[in-house]
Amino acid sequence: MALLGDKEFFKGIGEIKYEGKNSDNPMAFKFYNPDQVVAGKTMREHFKFAVAYWHTLCGTGGDPFGPGTKVFPWSTASDPIKAAEDKADAAFEFITKMGFDYYCFHDHDLVDEGATLAESEKRVQKTVEYLKQKQEASGVKLLWGTANCFSNPRYMNGAASNPNFDVVARAGAQIKIALDATIALGGENYVFWGGREGYMSLLNTDMKLEQDNIGRFLNMAKDYARSQGFKGVFFVEPKPMEPTKHQYDFDAATSINSLREYGLENDFKLNIEVNHATLAQHTFQHELQVAANAGMLGSIDANRGDYQNGWDTDQFPNNVMETAEAMLVFLKSGGLQGGGVNFDAKTRRNSTDLEDIFHAHIGGADTFARALLIANAVLENSPYQSLLDTRYSSFTKGKGSEFAQGKLSLTDLYEYAGKNGEPEQISGKQELFENILNQYS
Amino acid sequence: MALLGDKEFFKGIGEIKYEGKNSDNPMAFKFYNPDQVVAGKTMREHFKFAVAYWHTLCGTGGDPFGPGTKVFPWSTASDPIKAAEDKADAAFEFITKMGFDYYCFHDHDLVDEGATLAESEKRVQKTVEYLKQKQEASGVKLLWGTANCFSNPRYMNGAASNPNFDVVARAGAQIKIALDATIALGGENYVFWGGREGYMSLLNTDMKLEQDNIGRFLNMAKDYARSQGFKGVFFVEPKPMEPTKHQYDFDAATSINSLREYGLENDFKLNIEVNHATLAQHTFQHELQVAANAGMLGSIDANRGDYQNGWDTDQFPNNVMETAEAMLVFLKSGGLQGGGVNFDAKTRRNSTDLEDIFHAHIGGADTFARALLIANAVLENSPYQSLLDTRYSSFTKGKGSEFAQGKLSLTDLYEYAGKNGEPEQISGKQELFENILNQYS
Amino acid sequence: MALLGDKEFFKGIGEIKYEGKNSDNPMAFKFYNPDQVVAGKTMREHFKFAVAYWHTLCGTGGDPFGPGTKVFPWSTASDPIKAAEDKADAAFEFITKMGFDYYCFHDHDLVDEGATLAESEKRVQKTVEYLKQKQEASGVKLLWGTANCFSNPRYMNGAASNPNFDVVARAGAQIKIALDATIALGGENYVFWGGREGYMSLLNTDMKLEQDNIGRFLNMAKDYARSQGFKGVFFVEPKPMEPTKHQYDFDAATSINSLREYGLENDFKLNIEVNHATLAQHTFQHELQVAANAGMLGSIDANRGDYQNGWDTDQFPNNVMETAEAMLVFLKSGGLQGGGVNFDAKTRRNSTDLEDIFHAHIGGADTFARALLIANAVLENSPYQSLLDTRYSSFTKGKGSEFAQGKLSLTDLYEYAGKNGEPEQISGKQELFENILNQYS
Amino acid sequence: MALLGDKEFFKGIGEIKYEGKNSDNPMAFKFYNPDQVVAGKTMREHFKFAVAYWHTLCGTGGDPFGPGTKVFPWSTASDPIKAAEDKADAAFEFITKMGFDYYCFHDHDLVDEGATLAESEKRVQKTVEYLKQKQEASGVKLLWGTANCFSNPRYMNGAASNPNFDVVARAGAQIKIALDATIALGGENYVFWGGREGYMSLLNTDMKLEQDNIGRFLNMAKDYARSQGFKGVFFVEPKPMEPTKHQYDFDAATSINSLREYGLENDFKLNIEVNHATLAQHTFQHELQVAANAGMLGSIDANRGDYQNGWDTDQFPNNVMETAEAMLVFLKSGGLQGGGVNFDAKTRRNSTDLEDIFHAHIGGADTFARALLIANAVLENSPYQSLLDTRYSSFTKGKGSEFAQGKLSLTDLYEYAGKNGEPEQISGKQELFENILNQYS
Ligand SMILES: [Co+2]
Ligand SMILES: [Co+2]
Ligand SMILES: [Co+2]
Ligand SMILES: [Co+2]
Ligand SMILES: [Co+2]
Ligand SMILES: [Co+2]
Ligand SMILES: [Co+2]
Ligand SMILES: [Co+2]
Repeated sequence: MALLGDKEFFKGIGEIKYEGKNSDNPMAFKFYNPDQVVAGKTMREHFKFAVAYWHTLCGTGGDPFGPGTKVFPWSTASDPIKAAEDKADAAFEFITKMGFDYYCFHDHDLVDEGATLAESEKRVQKTVEYLKQKQEASGVKLLWGTANCFSNPRYMNGAASNPNFDVVARAGAQIKIALDATIALGGENYVFWGGREGYMSLLNTDMKLEQDNIGRFLNMAKDYARSQGFKGVFFVEPKPMEPTKHQYDFDAATSINSLREYGLENDFKLNIEVNHATLAQHTFQHELQVAANAGMLGSIDANRGDYQNGWDTDQFPNNVMETAEAMLVFLKSGGLQGGGVNFDAKTRRNSTDLEDIFHAHIGGADTFARALLIANAVLENSPYQSLLDTRYSSFTKGKGSEFAQGKLSLTDLYEYAGKNGEPEQISGKQELFENILNQYS
Repeated sequence: MALLGDKEFFKGIGEIKYEGKNSDNPMAFKFYNPDQVVAGKTMREHFKFAVAYWHTLCGTGGDPFGPGTKVFPWSTASDPIKAAEDKADAAFEFITKMGFDYYCFHDHDLVDEGATLAESEKRVQKTVEYLKQKQEASGVKLLWGTANCFSNPRYMNGAASNPNFDVVARAGAQIKIALDATIALGGENYVFWGGREGYMSLLNTDMKLEQDNIGRFLNMAKDYARSQGFKGVFFVEPKPMEPTKHQYDFDAATSINSLREYGLENDFKLNIEVNHATLAQHTFQHELQVAANAGMLGSIDANRGDYQNGWDTDQFPNNVMETAEAMLVFLKSGGLQGGGVNFDAKTRRNSTDLEDIFHAHIGGADTFARALLIANAVLENSPYQSLLDTRYSSFTKGKGSEFAQGKLSLTDLYEYAGKNGEPEQISGKQELFENILNQYS
Repeated sequence: MALLGDKEFFKGIGEIKYEGKNSDNPMAFKFYNPDQVVAGKTMREHFKFAVAYWHTLCGTGGDPFGPGTKVFPWSTASDPIKAAEDKADAAFEFITKMGFDYYCFHDHDLVDEGATLAESEKRVQKTVEYLKQKQEASGVKLLWGTANCFSNPRYMNGAASNPNFDVVARAGAQIKIALDATIALGGENYVFWGGREGYMSLLNTDMKLEQDNIGRFLNMAKDYARSQGFKGVFFVEPKPMEPTKHQYDFDAATSINSLREYGLENDFKLNIEVNHATLAQHTFQHELQVAANAGMLGSIDANRGDYQNGWDTDQFPNNVMETAEAMLVFLKSGGLQGGGVNFDAKTRRNSTDLEDIFHAHIGGADTFARALLIANAVLENSPYQSLLDTRYSSFTKGKGSEFAQGKLSLTDLYEYAGKNGEPEQISGKQELFENILNQYS
Repeated sequence: MALLGDKEFFKGIGEIKYEGKNSDNPMAFKFYNPDQVVAGKTMREHFKFAVAYWHTLCGTGGDPFGPGTKVFPWSTASDPIKAAEDKADAAFEFITKMGFDYYCFHDHDLVDEGATLAESEKRVQKTVEYLKQKQEASGVKLLWGTANCFSNPRYMNGAASNPNFDVVARAGAQIKIALDATIALGGENYVFWGGREGYMSLLNTDMKLEQDNIGRFLNMAKDYARSQGFKGVFFVEPKPMEPTKHQYDFDAATSINSLREYGLENDFKLNIEVNHATLAQHTFQHELQVAANAGMLGSIDANRGDYQNGWDTDQFPNNVMETAEAMLVFLKSGGLQGGGVNFDAKTRRNSTDLEDIFHAHIGGADTFARALLIANAVLENSPYQSLLDTRYSSFTKGKGSEFAQGKLSLTDLYEYAGKNGEPEQISGKQELFENILNQYS
């Protein structure tokens, strides 16, 4: 049930309900039916949809060519705590009207930074108290928290990777506060997105030292949180570039390599964002698969990029088939470990009506729901899995099976091949696989 | 001294000499002076320039829109062994006229594949005998060998990652023969380029099984070569895409992650190719740095891509400043471990004169030589290194030093930052660094 | 009805029929129902689906990293005319089994080039005679013809843009023969794809002279064809790059600019290829719209690129929503002028079964059919068009209408704006538009 | 001589002088020697270097991930006119210390927008009075003016292409004021950069109407300026994307096509920006050549992009060889028509020292100067031009010359080719051309 604060911010819009695919009500879900069971879980459980505080409550539409266009009615108070509470009211009104169960934040999405570290900490703590009440009143939970260590000018050369130790320490202090807030709110996970951890120019950069410093820093943060009883998962979020020329957590494989190098692989998993995958010249499903193969498919930042543009457009998901291919990986990998599907997406700069935020989230949730239904139908009703199993069946018997168990040497292969003659030509059947996917969509 | 076979293939072109930058002889080096000492080693020792058999001796200029344009005079014999010997004669004539010390090959660059594995092996062995004599007569050495497990239609679904075990075994047999050939010729290293190890569509692919199979396969190949007394380094060569949609060895970080996952990190290093770096949205110097940071900077495939085109153009190096930034990393990392600079580059399809091959290699060698001189001057004569050291000096003293030694906790950072107040703003001075590099070029 | 030659090449595959979306027969259309009327025309009339001789009958799967993988049973005869007739038999068997009405060719798709121009002409003429009979027997028609002036090594520096006049003349001769063949076969259109008209390096290129020469050349070809009674449309086919670094017909806007510059705008229209659009950083629908705005939307080369790869993958269409957005433009522009939808697409190199060619074309036809149904539903049943009309309604009344009629001056705008005050903020409603499209799919 | 205002903003930095390439003074030109004659003109005359008000005086380093980092001492006054005058003082101090002759501005770079159109106009007029005095006192001139019709939220859906006529009119009023200001200051040219003229989604866009409206609008602006006695050149500045998904003035060819379509080709030329060229998958020299071929090479926005990043990084020029290839086109085309070389470039967000602005402009000017010297040496001293002339010599004699004069028909080509036999194979010599360029650098 919608939880309002002192005033209703999204007037005229009630709770969004599932009405099925034949509804022509733009303010209804056509595919996202929270309690519908698919592959053994409800959609609600599969997705754990979360609202991203930064975009949805704070993003006024500024871009490099102009300031924000959106004047949010919850951002009028001059007192920072009052403003934070109004924003929280709007957030919970929105989340509950959407029927979602989760939200995510950076520390200074919640409340503006103060003039000093101490003042900032006090503001965060006060806002956390307020949010606790909202969580209790609504049942909405915190999927993950994080700290914004990239917007403030002090982080212009990076945070944990900053060449100046004073900034590294300042980032550490800020992250301690954000961890405390996350723990206080029962946050299920904690995220590290690279921010400005990377370089603008390799010429003025000691990459090895910077990466070692990040490794040390993440270990410190992890140790601290564990010492405070945090049982959740830590995520790093790969991104190849932007704001820096080169972000250290370029993609899933790069991030996994770093986590292993610094001994973080047991506590950390990945938060895969669609738009970051495509900026890295990968598909969304590729990045999910890489993470899943390493046992690190933790969470999803749901959005989409623009295939014709080379920056992080963070548009709301609406590509059903791109998401369906991702849901194939999702279902086959057993879903997400710890995390959920967070709408790290913004309405366009020129989408200035408050109702546009609803259109966007409805479209996003329906895209994931429909994609899940397609993937499930492909797996359950089509010849897809059986075709795939057949394709790899040579490793389940005879010499192939011995190979797969590591029992053969190169000389064994040489001898087998010498006797075996030219291998049979076997089509990859890509077009057939693609047709099957389309048929079940 | 130039080593000719029965006939001279590059008539009218003598040995290429260093004549200095004021020479207007297109058939002379302007910067590459083999015996000039730079940073403690001769240029010859730094680079170990190698000629790539496949492009220079075999590449006739075909592309997806038409067959080859170049009719090589060493490719006229109908007997495959005679053709292989003519090609070897041309190769050694070219290498010795260039004054280079090394070459690299794939097995079936040397001699055409036979109808059966046994026949192919015989051909390779015969050609190896001939090459041994050419090596002895000229002093030219084998930088590395490899096997072409991607051109033959049997490898259309991959080699070590093929879904059909029979093809995996066939690839194993071929690689055993190529390892034997490399060892017989005293090859200093052995390379694995991914070829078709990757996927065309994730839909019909079991990525985990395929990558595990590659891991097993590389271990078998390594074990076999070591059992035969091979002491050299194994290289994998990252490439992000092409011919497959996604190559498993996407970039340096991805490859390092795989090598570590499969326990190969002590025997394998990386062969970094310029064009593969840029296809992966990295700079050449970035990939070198990533490899060097992991202690895996093994070898270089020298060429250049086209920043406006999205495929592997494999053009000869001519971008002095791109190479100079790479040489900064090269010099600071102590050069290459085991490998050298192999011109994995082709003259354009419409560069059909035999002399164009000389222009191309001369331009490439001069580009690297000039870049090395620039990088060395920057390091020895400019304020570059001192500016860089200053930038990171906070980690060499006080709390920063304790941090760098892993002695601080997150709470320590919190307390330090609380006392320390807002950190000083320190410019990254990127424009100054860039001006210095230009000034010394 | 399927038209076989002396032997059946695609044994075991009969005529492909429409069975509706619930059919699980992989050898049936799920959406392409040739005689179903949509927006006043049958699907057959809308699309005029054509088979591309070069890919479907000639493309054996070679790529820059290996030769072809496919051994076509129609390509075994050593006599070129017999081989051409076998290929024609296979072509017409395939086209008629698919139930399509059209095909397209390059001259030397039909029959291999001869040793001389005269011999080549003779071969083309003989094959044309044979094709005429096949056309008559089947009712299949020629959508367009063209000449391959890019594969033969003589065209390595371009055809009409070649720096050597002798090559320009040779291209002229070849195109005359191809025009004669097209006219003889009742071809409805004639295409110029740029081939190697562009440059590999601007350094060795006189761009102005080359483009002027192309302009002259196209006029000559047009004049000749008209003098021979050809009434059809000429198309140029934009492509931004590949095989050359820069193709002169980069995209639709560039091509329109050239056609106008050389006075060709009344005889020429555009053939828009999906993969060329995306290589040029445009969407398919964008290129269609640009062409339509200029009255030049002539024909479509249907395929798809790979958003993660930067070369012309020419895969079969399977992206329903990309095609649906294109069909919106298609329907609103009144369809194609002269042309049709030609499957300029190839099965993957590792799709080596003959039946894969059917899967591919079935998937492609279904993609277009489904997309057409979606676009039509959006236009007929949804609020889409009305939302769009409202968005631009200010230009249909008052001062806005005067502006649109060109009746206002800058001073008028200044005065109007001075009185009018700050304009109302009006949301672009992008997310709503996107949701509507998804809802009707 | 440096022109200071009431206070000196760039303390400790005097006038930048040419000291030659062996100077190690970071605050001196190494190559830009304003009065040195190259190819018949001084460098000063060739380049007409201009400072971009928006980046250099107004750009505080904000990006999509954080606000500005730079606190400019000239931006402290709360009164807008006083702030504008301080900024003008800083601007002229900087320009005269650099020894440049020109500047460029958008209207609201000069002074902040007011609450109403009338108030904004008043502010612009007051600031123009002040700038006039500064121009007179220093001799510095206005290279071009323009209006910022993209930052204010009112332009979020475009200016001249806005779906709402009221916004179109408001843009018209603003441009009238900017034209008046430009004329009052003796501006030599006036620029239209697309801003948000383009679309975010084709779904909600009537592209034809929007482009027609732009055409009408540009004509109105031109007519008004001419009526006020403006004799200068109008420029449009191509850019492919950003801030919109698709900018209508995508590249040079697209822009030329539009100018011709709307009858603007006699009054308008192009302002080519390096970073916009590379974002459009072109080289800088390509865009210059396209403009020059149409007689429309008007002006240059000097900067550089990042080949690994897909957005407008607007970094200062430092790529000498990229610029040298551009200077070849520049010299061969007779330089710029009306315009100059404007540093549309910004110091990096983390380059926060005031002196960094000097480093950046010094590096940029030296890059252009050095590139000009290289290009001139190639043209005057190397075999470059003669090799190029030879390459195209077949069009200066015999049948080739008749062809170039438009005297031949397709049948003539057919007959010539039939007699002529197979054309000779002629290498494109790309590697030789490239080596020559490097040799003279
Ligand atoms: Co994210
Ligand atoms: Co993002
Ligand atoms: Co290579
Ligand atoms: Co390569
Ligand atoms: Co095509
Ligand atoms: Co294509
Ligand atoms: Co600009
Ligand atoms: Co720009």
